[in-house]
Amino acid sequence: VAKRLEKFKTTIFTQMSSLAIKHGAINLGQGFPNFDGPEFVKEAAIQAIKDGKNQYARGYGVPDLNSAIAERFKKDTGLVVDPDKEITVTSGCTEAIAATMLGLINPGDEVILFAPFYDSYEATLSMAGAKIKCITLCPPAFSVPIDELKSAITKNTRAILINTPHNPTGKMFTREELSTIASLCIENDVLVFTDEVYDKLAFETDHISMASLPGMYERTVTLNSLGKTFSLTGWKIGWAIAPPHLTWGVRQAHSFLTFATSTPMQWAAAAALRASESYYVELKRDYLAKKKILVDGLKAVGFKVFPSSGTYFVVVDHTPFGLENDIAFCEYLIKEVGVVAIPTSVFYLNPEDGKNLVRFTFCKDEETLKAAVERMKEKL
Amino acid sequence: VAKRLEKFKTTIFTQMSSLAIKHGAINLGQGFPNFDGPEFVKEAAIQAIKDGKNQYARGYGVPDLNSAIAERFKKDTGLVVDPDKEITVTSGCTEAIAATMLGLINPGDEVILFAPFYDSYEATLSMAGAKIKCITLCPPAFSVPIDELKSAITKNTRAILINTPHNPTGKMFTREELSTIASLCIENDVLVFTDEVYDKLAFETDHISMASLPGMYERTVTLNSLGKTFSLTGWKIGWAIAPPHLTWGVRQAHSFLTFATSTPMQWAAAAALRASESYYVELKRDYLAKKKILVDGLKAVGFKVFPSSGTYFVVVDHTPFGLENDIAFCEYLIKEVGVVAIPTSVFYLNPEDGKNLVRFTFCKDEETLKAAVERMKEKL
Ligand SMILES: CSCCC(=O)C(=O)O
Ligand SMILES: CSCCC(=O)C(=O)O
Repeated sequence: VAKRLEKFKTTIFTQMSSLAIKHGAINLGQGFPNFDGPEFVKEAAIQAIKDGKNQYARGYGVPDLNSAIAERFKKDTGLVVDPDKEITVTSGCTEAIAATMLGLINPGDEVILFAPFYDSYEATLSMAGAKIKCITLCPPAFSVPIDELKSAITKNTRAILINTPHNPTGKMFTREELSTIASLCIENDVLVFTDEVYDKLAFETDHISMASLPGMYERTVTLNSLGKTFSLTGWKIGWAIAPPHLTWGVRQAHSFLTFATSTPMQWAAAAALRASESYYVELKRDYLAKKKILVDGLKAVGFKVFPSSGTYFVVVDHTPFGLENDIAFCEYLIKEVGVVAIPTSVFYLNPEDGKNLVRFTFCKDEETLKAAVERMKEKL
Repeated sequence: VAKRLEKFKTTIFTQMSSLAIKHGAINLGQGFPNFDGPEFVKEAAIQAIKDGKNQYARGYGVPDLNSAIAERFKKDTGLVVDPDKEITVTSGCTEAIAATMLGLINPGDEVILFAPFYDSYEATLSMAGAKIKCITLCPPAFSVPIDELKSAITKNTRAILINTPHNPTGKMFTREELSTIASLCIENDVLVFTDEVYDKLAFETDHISMASLPGMYERTVTLNSLGKTFSLTGWKIGWAIAPPHLTWGVRQAHSFLTFATSTPMQWAAAAALRASESYYVELKRDYLAKKKILVDGLKAVGFKVFPSSGTYFVVVDHTPFGLENDIAFCEYLIKEVGVVAIPTSVFYLNPEDGKNLVRFTFCKDEETLKAAVERMKEKL
């Protein structure tokens, strides 16, 4: 394996999902629903396949999807973007992240990350040869330590990576935090890469897109995807929205990473994004009910549960159960209890920082969530 | 844009396909069929969507697809591989190429390429920081200059990249050429990355997989895809077959480039690969008829046509028509004749080397091919 990837292991999501199958455990680990996406979206994919929309798409996206993404972005942020010059459709947000890093970051550029962070950020920054500066967000609120952020910025800082709503913690960056980050970026000529795949799962306050802050659009790459919002994580449709000069870099990397994304799925994604607002309202309502089952259950089991205001994840402190660290706890949980969670140490540069925390997902039907809670009540 | 991608332009395929649309020209440029893939494969995709196979696939492939790829590889090469440890499913062969380079090549490693070459090879080698050594294959036979190859190998050579059947020329590496390359690789401890996406479009002799040569499997990454063989270029299902130690590198890069590939499309791909042999026989028969129409037509128009024994491409010398170079010729062809071809200079490190050649594809229905020939007869 090349040096740039030497330090990385099989992703924790793959590891945990295969252990779930092996031990017949209830999988509250990897974030994928155990229910299906909406019929109208599936129907749109089927129709596209039947209609012969089966050859290479335009590299940066089927025109109808780029338009649908622009329309949705306008509804969400008020920003008007050119669907042909400022949007790049990718094979999931994972590819959008990789294309952003490889297309815009040079070896030696400094990029600021907040830990805990999604594992592909570190790996793709390593592919790009970036120097990572990591700032740790601490429980219970996981707030941004502004002074630390200020002193992390140097003349070599190229970008700050944010993720809101935030995986794994469920934290949503506040308007104040975003404004402060924005000012720092404008002052120091720094870009923002913002992963907003959970934007429609914002339970307490409205999601705020970094790109919508004054002066920020021109220095922001907004990353999003279809999978979480439409419970179709396996379709792998993502996108990057950015002004033309940044889009150029993203597209050049995308051209040579995958060239284009599954054509019939793109047509279906366009139909999905034109869903009426009621779809999103119902989605949120359903997830709130699931969240309540899981959070109440985890509390009743005896965990210290940290507040999660977005995403379909919650993070808990497992130390009341006396296991050595998050990995040991998750092993015990799989083997002795029959439930899978994600140890959070993999989301930190320094694994020690995550040793008290594990992540559970509630993107499962209510029965499954209840069954998992029952198992923990009985056996933990 | 990051320096690693600075020298690259919008891919020629994207440029030419959008010019085709703009000028209403017949598109014999980018290699995608203007007819649809087989019903049974489309039906399998529809069934998978209906059956709720819509969440994340296992990162390196849906088990059934990995098995189907292993079965096909055994039929084609006699080699038995472990579907779970030696096969990685990717988002098209383009991603398999990127993952191979980023997963196995370190900065400064030397990689030998044969020009003309598919554009993503150079771009992904640049992403990996490789030093490219390029050997030019010359018409009419595009044979490998063995002495030149021998002297290109140094102690820093990490891999030789081959592509057979070869895009754009249609050349198939002969058993003798492959054996010589194999000996050199074994002697000098060099890997082979072999792009064989056109393996089922071998018209004169059987396709030979480099991996099947004695001693080669353990040092070869075999890259292939669904799109060309099943006329479904837009589905973007590719794969890499390699021994476990090389698969590890490919998978680590793949994990962070896209993580996984569209789940329902993978189920359909498994069904496709289990097609009976008669499917492949008919495919070849259909393409031979198309090839004859195009090749006879191009000759009648007055081109010097170089022999193509595989792929759905032919390369011609355009100089009888007196235009300055391949780019000028293709512009004239689009605007004055209404036909799109691909200038080959983009397939060379030194564009000058390709200035006399252009590529046509015959992956179009017979009527379209005839119409293109008619236009050229009239207006060239
Ligand atoms: C791409 S697998 C990971 C899915 C996910 O977003 C998560 O579980 O954090
Ligand atoms: C990925 S677009 C290029 C299609 C193709 O293989 C070709 O035309 O050479």
